[in-house]
Amino acid sequence: MDATLALARFVADSQFEAIDEGAQDESVRALVNWLGCALGGAFDPAVDAALDAFGVALGPAQCTLIGRGDRTDVFTGALVTGLAANLLDFDDTHLATFVHPSVPVAAALFALGEHRQSGGRDVAHAFVLGVEVACRVAAALGDDHYRRGWHVTATCGVLGAAAACAKLLGLDAERTAMALGIAATSAAGLVEMFGSAAKSLNMGFAARNGVQSALLAQAGFTAASQPLEGRRGLLAVLGEHSNPDAIVASLGTRWAIVQVAYKPYPCGVVLHPVIDACLALRARHNIKARDVTSVELRVPAQVLELTGRPDPHTALEAKLSLRHCVAVALADGAAGVRQFTEQRLRNTRIAELRSRVDAIAAPESVAHAIIVKVNLTSGQSVERHAGRLADGATRALSDAELSDKFRALASELLATDQAERLLALAWNMRALADIGSLARASVPEEEIAPSELPGSPLIPR
Amino acid sequence: MDATLALARFVADSQFEAIDEGAQDESVRALVNWLGCALGGAFDPAVDAALDAFGVALGPAQCTLIGRGDRTDVFTGALVTGLAANLLDFDDTHLATFVHPSVPVAAALFALGEHRQSGGRDVAHAFVLGVEVACRVAAALGDDHYRRGWHVTATCGVLGAAAACAKLLGLDAERTAMALGIAATSAAGLVEMFGSAAKSLNMGFAARNGVQSALLAQAGFTAASQPLEGRRGLLAVLGEHSNPDAIVASLGTRWAIVQVAYKPYPCGVVLHPVIDACLALRARHNIKARDVTSVELRVPAQVLELTGRPDPHTALEAKLSLRHCVAVALADGAAGVRQFTEQRLRNTRIAELRSRVDAIAAPESVAHAIIVKVNLTSGQSVERHAGRLADGATRALSDAELSDKFRALASELLATDQAERLLALAWNMRALADIGSLARASVPEEEIAPSELPGSPLIPR
Repeated sequence: MDATLALARFVADSQFEAIDEGAQDESVRALVNWLGCALGGAFDPAVDAALDAFGVALGPAQCTLIGRGDRTDVFTGALVTGLAANLLDFDDTHLATFVHPSVPVAAALFALGEHRQSGGRDVAHAFVLGVEVACRVAAALGDDHYRRGWHVTATCGVLGAAAACAKLLGLDAERTAMALGIAATSAAGLVEMFGSAAKSLNMGFAARNGVQSALLAQAGFTAASQPLEGRRGLLAVLGEHSNPDAIVASLGTRWAIVQVAYKPYPCGVVLHPVIDACLALRARHNIKARDVTSVELRVPAQVLELTGRPDPHTALEAKLSLRHCVAVALADGAAGVRQFTEQRLRNTRIAELRSRVDAIAAPESVAHAIIVKVNLTSGQSVERHAGRLADGATRALSDAELSDKFRALASELLATDQAERLLALAWNMRALADIGSLARASVPEEEIAPSELPGSPLIPR
Repeated sequence: MDATLALARFVADSQFEAIDEGAQDESVRALVNWLGCALGGAFDPAVDAALDAFGVALGPAQCTLIGRGDRTDVFTGALVTGLAANLLDFDDTHLATFVHPSVPVAAALFALGEHRQSGGRDVAHAFVLGVEVACRVAAALGDDHYRRGWHVTATCGVLGAAAACAKLLGLDAERTAMALGIAATSAAGLVEMFGSAAKSLNMGFAARNGVQSALLAQAGFTAASQPLEGRRGLLAVLGEHSNPDAIVASLGTRWAIVQVAYKPYPCGVVLHPVIDACLALRARHNIKARDVTSVELRVPAQVLELTGRPDPHTALEAKLSLRHCVAVALADGAAGVRQFTEQRLRNTRIAELRSRVDAIAAPESVAHAIIVKVNLTSGQSVERHAGRLADGATRALSDAELSDKFRALASELLATDQAERLLALAWNMRALADIGSLARASVPEEEIAPSELPGSPLIPR
């Protein structure tokens, strides 16, 4: 079986109008969400550092950094945009694989698309295909891939980005397969980086390397013919019990993009059910932080390994800290961007509350049942069970909620009327003659005074 | 144990004069060998394709492509030079780990060094350290890493390149550790690519990603603090039975560079003992190709897996073809650059001889004992046993032989007097005030008529 070639042929032959309308529409919702995340991370110090480093050797001005306006070459643009859009940990999730597909795929496409003046419809089409490829390769690699320590969004995202860029360049099936081969041999990214900015750098590398894979294939560069399914291919080398069939099963009838969920909270997605439970307990029992003597949690073992660190030291660590999420959810009744700043991390009341949170791993048999128990100064205890992440409300963000999330993220950077114009343009992106107009419309037209609303939730729930 | 930090501190604190003189001298021998390889691969079609692809977004003219003269930015320069210098499969080998360390480390250093106008001594120093880091990480990963399907030169080469560039930039231990962290999360490269130009692209990516890791660290970008030894770090995720102690064992007293061997034949190093045996049999028994009815081989199972493909289709596949190596060694009495061209691959006499070569895997107990048996039309059979690769003559190239190898590689590109001037400059590289003068001196001053000496061995043995 030639899984790579079958996948490449599917990408090369795809017609947008043949894709389910639901999948077409979801691509726009995902890209609206992604654009907000890119705005929100645009001025993170890690982005400045990356621009310092790559600024040494910047190529021609081919694309526009979202929310900033710096003009860079396509490679740097894809890399820095991929980095920026993931730093808030607010991007989307394909829950079946834990891939966050939009960041690497869209970052690659927006850079290359602006350079080539691609139309919005073509970009949306390539985006659907790139998300499809990333999620299918992840499904074929199986859960053990992530568990071993691979940052699955990066390792599979580079393949998605390569496929998407190959489509945008109009490569035929053979060259698309070569792009996938070059991407496969670039696949990298360690979970060890979680909690540092290098986690998001993994996304940037995946986006840049996806662009480079497609351009190399277009130039005639060749790779192995079975980079995924071959004996020493990606599935064998980066997977434990890979299932190559998952790459092509129901190709063209089942779409990954419609299984994508959007985060209401800018932090590790595995923590969202815990936050939901804390917010619900707080609202129902009118809990104040000062009433809490301790919090006891039972969470899946893998969640505890990823997020159990006792004392987060940086804002990025706070986004992967169970204790911090519980503390801010109970104290602030919110888990928005402001709950994950350095300032909020250092707040003594929050730090004190964090120290009163304790967690144990759930036994394997009930691994998905999360329990949050809050013990109160009154002597009373209140408790809430949360279900599997995939059962949660995460995926249920409506168009209106996605717009609100976008507005909240844009508000730090853009005046209200500019944000509204950009949002309207984004919802209408399939009609754009030149996708670059979106990035250019994201550049602040005037200075915004830093907002001073600590603890306000990004999305009222 | 903080292996990463210990390694970073070693790199940051190193003084060239404190390094064994033998290791200092070997760095020059390795770089002379590498420079010849870079010349030999300079005009390969794969290099043209890469330049087409990266030419789309080329940055400022910061370094010179060896043997070509194209001026590129440091990232593209490192990538394309790394690609070019490996395409002939003629570069060096650290036999204990099968890392080919010079290509990724030197390609990164020559690009960054020319940009920064670094002195030759500083480059040689950084080179010794980069080779050390690459080989130590490979030793810590152990044999299973390569066996699983990782292109160990690429996965470990990026760490060597990052360390070398960090040294050239003068980064302190903490920032060097961050460079190693960023490199670790970029580590990639599949053995599946062997036989395609993407194998050498792995080297180019490692070189470019090494430069980028050091520049990002210099700009203040941060990564995980235990990227190698951490629970989800490189050793755990890319290794099976890793030994972190190997990273720091005898640091500063044992040097990897002095264990580096140089190839007399431009093909997979595991095939060299087979070629040696065929050449010896041919010379001793005065064998002509037409006298050979069949050849029977017994080789280690892993060698058979890597090189057993019955029918090589491209020059790159021929370099990893047991049958092709046997055929040219017996027919031509040589295994030089000309024995691995498309022309030689398609030669009907060679193809016919290839079809008469058969190989089986040696039993585990005698895995390292290679046997070559040639059956002759006379009814006679002649046989030769070859030992372990590490016991072979591969490492024993003298300075004079390295010079001859360089001359042969340069002869396709440079007039004799220019080649001699470049060679003298290379042997004297530690005295250069600006390492860039070497790359600039490698650019052909006049057109060379294509040589017409088919089948001539590069090195008379």
